[in-house]
Amino acid sequence: MAKIIGEELKNIPWQDKPKGYHLPVWRYDNNPIIDRHAISTSNSIFNSAVVPFKDGFAGVFRCDSLAVSMDLHAGFSNDGINWKIDEEIIDIECADSEIGKREYRYDPRVVKIDDKYYVSWCNGYHGPTIGLAYTDDFKKFTQLENAFLPHNRNGVLFPRKINGKYAMLSRPSDTGHTPFGDIFYSESPDLEYWGHHRHVMSTYKGDESAWQSTKIGPGPVPIETDEGWLIIYHGVLTSCNGFIYRVGCALLDIDEPYKVLHRTRFYIMAPEESYELTGDVPNVVFPCAALSDSKSGRIALYYGCADTVTGLAFTTVDELINWMKKYDMA
Amino acid sequence: MAKIIGEELKNIPWQDKPKGYHLPVWRYDNNPIIDRHAISTSNSIFNSAVVPFKDGFAGVFRCDSLAVSMDLHAGFSNDGINWKIDEEIIDIECADSEIGKREYRYDPRVVKIDDKYYVSWCNGYHGPTIGLAYTDDFKKFTQLENAFLPHNRNGVLFPRKINGKYAMLSRPSDTGHTPFGDIFYSESPDLEYWGHHRHVMSTYKGDESAWQSTKIGPGPVPIETDEGWLIIYHGVLTSCNGFIYRVGCALLDIDEPYKVLHRTRFYIMAPEESYELTGDVPNVVFPCAALSDSKSGRIALYYGCADTVTGLAFTTVDELINWMKKYDMA
Amino acid sequence: MAKIIGEELKNIPWQDKPKGYHLPVWRYDNNPIIDRHAISTSNSIFNSAVVPFKDGFAGVFRCDSLAVSMDLHAGFSNDGINWKIDEEIIDIECADSEIGKREYRYDPRVVKIDDKYYVSWCNGYHGPTIGLAYTDDFKKFTQLENAFLPHNRNGVLFPRKINGKYAMLSRPSDTGHTPFGDIFYSESPDLEYWGHHRHVMSTYKGDESAWQSTKIGPGPVPIETDEGWLIIYHGVLTSCNGFIYRVGCALLDIDEPYKVLHRTRFYIMAPEESYELTGDVPNVVFPCAALSDSKSGRIALYYGCADTVTGLAFTTVDELINWMKKYDMA
Amino acid sequence: MAKIIGEELKNIPWQDKPKGYHLPVWRYDNNPIIDRHAISTSNSIFNSAVVPFKDGFAGVFRCDSLAVSMDLHAGFSNDGINWKIDEEIIDIECADSEIGKREYRYDPRVVKIDDKYYVSWCNGYHGPTIGLAYTDDFKKFTQLENAFLPHNRNGVLFPRKINGKYAMLSRPSDTGHTPFGDIFYSESPDLEYWGHHRHVMSTYKGDESAWQSTKIGPGPVPIETDEGWLIIYHGVLTSCNGFIYRVGCALLDIDEPYKVLHRTRFYIMAPEESYELTGDVPNVVFPCAALSDSKSGRIALYYGCADTVTGLAFTTVDELINWMKKYDMA
Amino acid sequence: MAKIIGEELKNIPWQDKPKGYHLPVWRYDNNPIIDRHAISTSNSIFNSAVVPFKDGFAGVFRCDSLAVSMDLHAGFSNDGINWKIDEEIIDIECADSEIGKREYRYDPRVVKIDDKYYVSWCNGYHGPTIGLAYTDDFKKFTQLENAFLPHNRNGVLFPRKINGKYAMLSRPSDTGHTPFGDIFYSESPDLEYWGHHRHVMSTYKGDESAWQSTKIGPGPVPIETDEGWLIIYHGVLTSCNGFIYRVGCALLDIDEPYKVLHRTRFYIMAPEESYELTGDVPNVVFPCAALSDSKSGRIALYYGCADTVTGLAFTTVDELINWMKKYDMA
Amino acid sequence: MAKIIGEELKNIPWQDKPKGYHLPVWRYDNNPIIDRHAISTSNSIFNSAVVPFKDGFAGVFRCDSLAVSMDLHAGFSNDGINWKIDEEIIDIECADSEIGKREYRYDPRVVKIDDKYYVSWCNGYHGPTIGLAYTDDFKKFTQLENAFLPHNRNGVLFPRKINGKYAMLSRPSDTGHTPFGDIFYSESPDLEYWGHHRHVMSTYKGDESAWQSTKIGPGPVPIETDEGWLIIYHGVLTSCNGFIYRVGCALLDIDEPYKVLHRTRFYIMAPEESYELTGDVPNVVFPCAALSDSKSGRIALYYGCADTVTGLAFTTVDELINWMKKYDMA
Repeated sequence: MAKIIGEELKNIPWQDKPKGYHLPVWRYDNNPIIDRHAISTSNSIFNSAVVPFKDGFAGVFRCDSLAVSMDLHAGFSNDGINWKIDEEIIDIECADSEIGKREYRYDPRVVKIDDKYYVSWCNGYHGPTIGLAYTDDFKKFTQLENAFLPHNRNGVLFPRKINGKYAMLSRPSDTGHTPFGDIFYSESPDLEYWGHHRHVMSTYKGDESAWQSTKIGPGPVPIETDEGWLIIYHGVLTSCNGFIYRVGCALLDIDEPYKVLHRTRFYIMAPEESYELTGDVPNVVFPCAALSDSKSGRIALYYGCADTVTGLAFTTVDELINWMKKYDMA
Repeated sequence: MAKIIGEELKNIPWQDKPKGYHLPVWRYDNNPIIDRHAISTSNSIFNSAVVPFKDGFAGVFRCDSLAVSMDLHAGFSNDGINWKIDEEIIDIECADSEIGKREYRYDPRVVKIDDKYYVSWCNGYHGPTIGLAYTDDFKKFTQLENAFLPHNRNGVLFPRKINGKYAMLSRPSDTGHTPFGDIFYSESPDLEYWGHHRHVMSTYKGDESAWQSTKIGPGPVPIETDEGWLIIYHGVLTSCNGFIYRVGCALLDIDEPYKVLHRTRFYIMAPEESYELTGDVPNVVFPCAALSDSKSGRIALYYGCADTVTGLAFTTVDELINWMKKYDMA
Repeated sequence: MAKIIGEELKNIPWQDKPKGYHLPVWRYDNNPIIDRHAISTSNSIFNSAVVPFKDGFAGVFRCDSLAVSMDLHAGFSNDGINWKIDEEIIDIECADSEIGKREYRYDPRVVKIDDKYYVSWCNGYHGPTIGLAYTDDFKKFTQLENAFLPHNRNGVLFPRKINGKYAMLSRPSDTGHTPFGDIFYSESPDLEYWGHHRHVMSTYKGDESAWQSTKIGPGPVPIETDEGWLIIYHGVLTSCNGFIYRVGCALLDIDEPYKVLHRTRFYIMAPEESYELTGDVPNVVFPCAALSDSKSGRIALYYGCADTVTGLAFTTVDELINWMKKYDMA
Repeated sequence: MAKIIGEELKNIPWQDKPKGYHLPVWRYDNNPIIDRHAISTSNSIFNSAVVPFKDGFAGVFRCDSLAVSMDLHAGFSNDGINWKIDEEIIDIECADSEIGKREYRYDPRVVKIDDKYYVSWCNGYHGPTIGLAYTDDFKKFTQLENAFLPHNRNGVLFPRKINGKYAMLSRPSDTGHTPFGDIFYSESPDLEYWGHHRHVMSTYKGDESAWQSTKIGPGPVPIETDEGWLIIYHGVLTSCNGFIYRVGCALLDIDEPYKVLHRTRFYIMAPEESYELTGDVPNVVFPCAALSDSKSGRIALYYGCADTVTGLAFTTVDELINWMKKYDMA
Repeated sequence: MAKIIGEELKNIPWQDKPKGYHLPVWRYDNNPIIDRHAISTSNSIFNSAVVPFKDGFAGVFRCDSLAVSMDLHAGFSNDGINWKIDEEIIDIECADSEIGKREYRYDPRVVKIDDKYYVSWCNGYHGPTIGLAYTDDFKKFTQLENAFLPHNRNGVLFPRKINGKYAMLSRPSDTGHTPFGDIFYSESPDLEYWGHHRHVMSTYKGDESAWQSTKIGPGPVPIETDEGWLIIYHGVLTSCNGFIYRVGCALLDIDEPYKVLHRTRFYIMAPEESYELTGDVPNVVFPCAALSDSKSGRIALYYGCADTVTGLAFTTVDELINWMKKYDMA
Repeated sequence: MAKIIGEELKNIPWQDKPKGYHLPVWRYDNNPIIDRHAISTSNSIFNSAVVPFKDGFAGVFRCDSLAVSMDLHAGFSNDGINWKIDEEIIDIECADSEIGKREYRYDPRVVKIDDKYYVSWCNGYHGPTIGLAYTDDFKKFTQLENAFLPHNRNGVLFPRKINGKYAMLSRPSDTGHTPFGDIFYSESPDLEYWGHHRHVMSTYKGDESAWQSTKIGPGPVPIETDEGWLIIYHGVLTSCNGFIYRVGCALLDIDEPYKVLHRTRFYIMAPEESYELTGDVPNVVFPCAALSDSKSGRIALYYGCADTVTGLAFTTVDELINWMKKYDMA
């Protein structure tokens, strides 16, 4: 039995697995939990990030406006299911206006490291790259230097330093609807300068795991376990009618997280429900955040549905690790 | 309060805005009003045009056959909601067989100028261009010269001469699923020779109004108001899974309609209902006709849904002009 | 009245045509008959083939796994509607390991010729080509030589020799989501060497039958009638949001089956139901098998829905031949 | 023997055909006549137009600058071979600044109609279209309305009215390196409004005349003969390494110039010399102007070479018409 | 020392290797040997095949006409260097007009098997495939069935039966400028039916042999040696400005020629001379025929240059086999 | 008169500007200085870097092998014109085999900072990125961490620290023949971790400077002057037949080099000579290195020609700065 290393989270949202359900991840029965019009000016709310905060939860949400511009909004919840999202875009302070000038912002992740909450997102700076900011209260945010040169998406910080360095997973990209993408690992002594870039995982080009043949990218913040870092990631296949986004997971070495110990050949989740099959971008499930409880091993997974609404699903550390070992391709 | 200039239309189809609804256009609650099989040989009926006619309404409808060939059918209605569409394709007479020879016809608009009803449509003549015809009774139609050289789509006549000339909006295109497109204005002394072409509006390439970043094209016949010509148009964004067609509006100068006074940064309507999200072309709402009542300011909007069925929606001149001024990008 | 030449099939699945239904093919009212999770490791089950076998029915099914790898599974049914599909992939024996080595297998067809059941499918061998095997019992399968060089898909054997030769329809392709494709006819003295290739039908490039403008490919095994070989085939149109797969039929000369006697200008079936409009590949109906009863003229058609589930539909030889003659383009 | 209808031109540049040369067009033996650096700020000078003027010749030249911006310069010559090109860009006056505002200008043609010299060119106006201007002295130019909506290139006026109307050939295009293109005919009562558009010639999609399979476009001003309008046009084939531009000719009906009487299946000129095979765009010969002498039947052809320099070639009306009749595809 | 198995050819064209030349293939010093205008109606003559015939040599030549249509002409030579090519296209008789109907013909190979000369070429039949014919005298040719379904190019027969079967190498292709291509092997008992298809060699996707990364295809008829079948083939790399065709060689097993014994990592010839760097398709050397002398081991290689003219080069069996073993990738 | 800040270089290669030559950069009259076969296994030698070394010069050269694999070779010269290039690939030592493992290496730059020579190049590590190494003697090289995540090309170090940090220009790219590209600036405290990324210059999308409309990238190491950092860069335009690489220059602020003071609207050099117009990639001049003499202001520019050979050209700091100010677009 694998063990999550970290804090207990008694109030993690939860539903037991339906009897006879054969996949390792199951959906909340009242999905979607956030509607596309949850604020008054939104076209869609999806690909969003949540963390425990005070007695409840806080989050940073991707809200595409009625202009279909992409930006970040803060939100709060007592139970992790019912959310109140701020009508106003997050106002991020930045000492250097060259960096602070907004082009577009989307697909945030949030992680607590030591005493601060750090947000990473896809930030427009002459092309997509990884923006970084921190906050104490989800009201005031301070922006740091962009981590990389363009073009990059899906920058995800680890929840603690590794070998004394901050660590990040990301997916180098191109300027458009990138038709390729592997996962890489990078380090920083200070969240300002980045280096020691290492390749982690490639797409899989054969029929044996076709769902992840076009591109893969990191999803929620890695979960530390006694067997390694558990990551949940998206994989994309190109059908004759476009991209299909599904979800898999992998286990990375604790001290050298660019080494893959296990990796799912079978996906763990795929678009099946009407709110995943239809919407602005049909056939997308896209995980961006996970809550976990070290005591029970429970994991609550937040994911974007068809680039339109936000869904919630459940699993446990054992479900995922057993699945990985059973259908392993590492 | 803006005022529509034109005739009263007491029997305009109408439903009041649902309480708390936050967008300026709302759907008829029994949509779609025309099913894909409303005539015996149709694959789909959409992107169609209606006008007041005698005591009721008449229209020209795009009916794609079971061969998925595209052609025009006439139809009639007492209330603008329940339609009887002719089983037979409109037979258009043309003095010159070179022009009259049918390749394909689609996306009609209809407008009454003086005593005649004029139909414009996308007409196949060695590529798509703008066909023109007139009728008195929606039974006998007489075809005129094509307005332009190929390649063009979405030719929309103004409802009266401007500065003594007939006037038309259109969208120059290419031969296929055109990935670009601006709106232009052209004039004619006689509906036979066209010139004085003017650029009206471009797509918007930034994040601030991404829904109209790929192409835009004119929709219903412009509505004259005391503030300018009110036009409703479609805008397209390219997702990784194809085009998304949404709807916006703009206000053009009365005497120089190639000058834009106001234009929506936020869209006014987007695919949300299952009959808009799924069908032959998912994620399409495509407006082609509007009825308006000068007394009440009411507007009934007819639009194609997923290139499959026809929907009806409602708004008012004040809803649209207030929205434009509130979220303006002109 | 046309007559099917072949055996009676008293237990053919059947429902009468709904009153007033205007198309020649109608759906089973409890579709889909096979769910995407009918076996424990499947992402989807579709594009599959069935034949009468003993007192009931047997079939070969395309099951994409949770890795989205593509392979073939056998299945059995008493009534042709409720199916029990083997959890294990078919194990095909092959004398020559060069041919027998599996890359991927999909879109099977099954036909009984003399005393054996022959399976043809899209077989990965340095690109897609046509694999062939035979079985007596749907348990042990013996693989033959691939029929052609790459790249080919949709190889369909005729149910008897023609002029003393085995005969096959197929669709030459490219390596990817092929954007073209005609139907060809080939002969073999021995199922080992193939030649005498003849062109049968092209796509139709005009508006008059646009649904089959991108590519066409053979579907179920041809049905022999006293007027010629009745074939049911898929046709594809490219919309701005991808491919749309529909179904048509044609009548081929009995002795020279590369001569087309009749061919549908109007399709006979198109994606309309939610399980056809949404799924891994939206807007696909893809026929792969047909049961027929020579006494009643009844035909039961099995087809893939949205590359996700399996549907059943019904028609008769007269429905199809009348439709072809009424809307003929041969 | 065909006869050119028009003025004598005693001082037409000329060299006799080399003995034994088998093609109907032969090159000037001191080509190129205009170097890429003939003015101090030019990257290249090509695709340019000349006419008899006073005792010598005048012309409008496409000069791409060292910035590779595209514009028009006037030039003068005593013998049609040695040219003095103005260092300054032509300053075109225009009553309407909307039209007069320069985006880019290239590929001019010049023709004398009645007492004025008219210039047509590819004019940037929200995409390429046909610009028009007139001059008396090649110093002061007055710009007219653009003839068409975008997108069009290669607009070429006839040298006199036909049936009382101005007449123009052109090639509808797309916004980029257009991969298609047919020749069309349009009429105007006043050079301001254009209509009665007619299709003239298509590309040829078969192997029998592959050099003109991608696109074709009109070249010099049509030459009137007693057998019809003689036009010289460019044709393009797409090799795996890009476009190849070659030259052909056709004979159009005198009164209905959209009717093709003869057309070359064999080209009359192709890139062969090093200054045609290499340069900014390898493998281009592109004719834009022709001088002709009604007395001798001689024709001097000016053409762009590899989008870099300007060449001169010779032929006669009989050479071309005999070739057309011998290798005819009309 | 390797030994060619076959007849002596005393009059093989020959020049000794230039001193200090470091590549294993060297050019004839008076290249090109056949000009683009060697017949009166040709645009270009290249990619052609020659064999010993009577006291001299005969050949089948690809002549693209002035229409740039592609067809085959016979030619004769006393010394293999100076050629007389027939003005008329080869007239091929065919019993079945369906096959005999010409679409286009190009890239021939010629081989003597027993007492007949067989020609294989890329033959248009609803797409490119492999045409076959035989002749006794290079005057009368009799066409056989096409070997394969479309789409295929570069069909090359072996010079004798292997294991009692005729044998052919070929390259499956698509309908256009195919961006992929491996070499395959097929057998036939009678030159009418083909089967037992085997994969021989793939492109090489890594940097270690980038010149053959896009596609490879067989060139001249295989040369039998005591170490195996020596084949010379073309390899293609895609630069940002198009395809570059170079030449390599390989050694195949005598009895199972789909087994590769050696294969060049380094190319043996690449475009370097001006007649290879410029022409209709820049940067192409394309070998189609080789003469060999079993006594001296000399090989004379005929190759197309820039799809425009024909070149001659020399090597020996030892030069090639040593190079293969030194820079081997098999 | 601008002044170069740096060392004197008495033995800089030099030829005076030809009389009357109008462009600011002129070619060495015996170009190319390095042939494609300068070493025994090379297909081409180009895009290479040189620096003063001891009494003469040393360099790192891109040599594509006969396999067309891309790698780096050292070379030495007494006069900067006649070069002796090592037959062996540079052997770069690297403490971490993950980084040191070669995929491919190309387009090097070399710069002396303090006492060491640093090489930067395009390094294959799961896509192209910027490799870094240092050497004292051009024999032993030690590899550092890659500077960035993929995908990047043209990483060029500044010759001294700026504000206490190492500084680099680069061009973010995609995985293929990238059709876009701007120049960025990045800083590092230690050549190990990089950050503070700033945008420097964009392509120019208008006709006014079309030669740099597709992509731009830094060339030689920046030259310090009393007016700012002088950089020479390549710009690319996409013609219908592929990319054209030309050369421009700009002046950057001394302390904030991401601020552009001047920039050429007109290019300073373009492909004109046969060795630039033809070769493996026609129409390429690509500068990678510059020597400069602070006393005379002379600059010797090394550039790749058609991706095949290496050329040398000359200019002065005044020629470039005057040209920039005269044809400025900053």
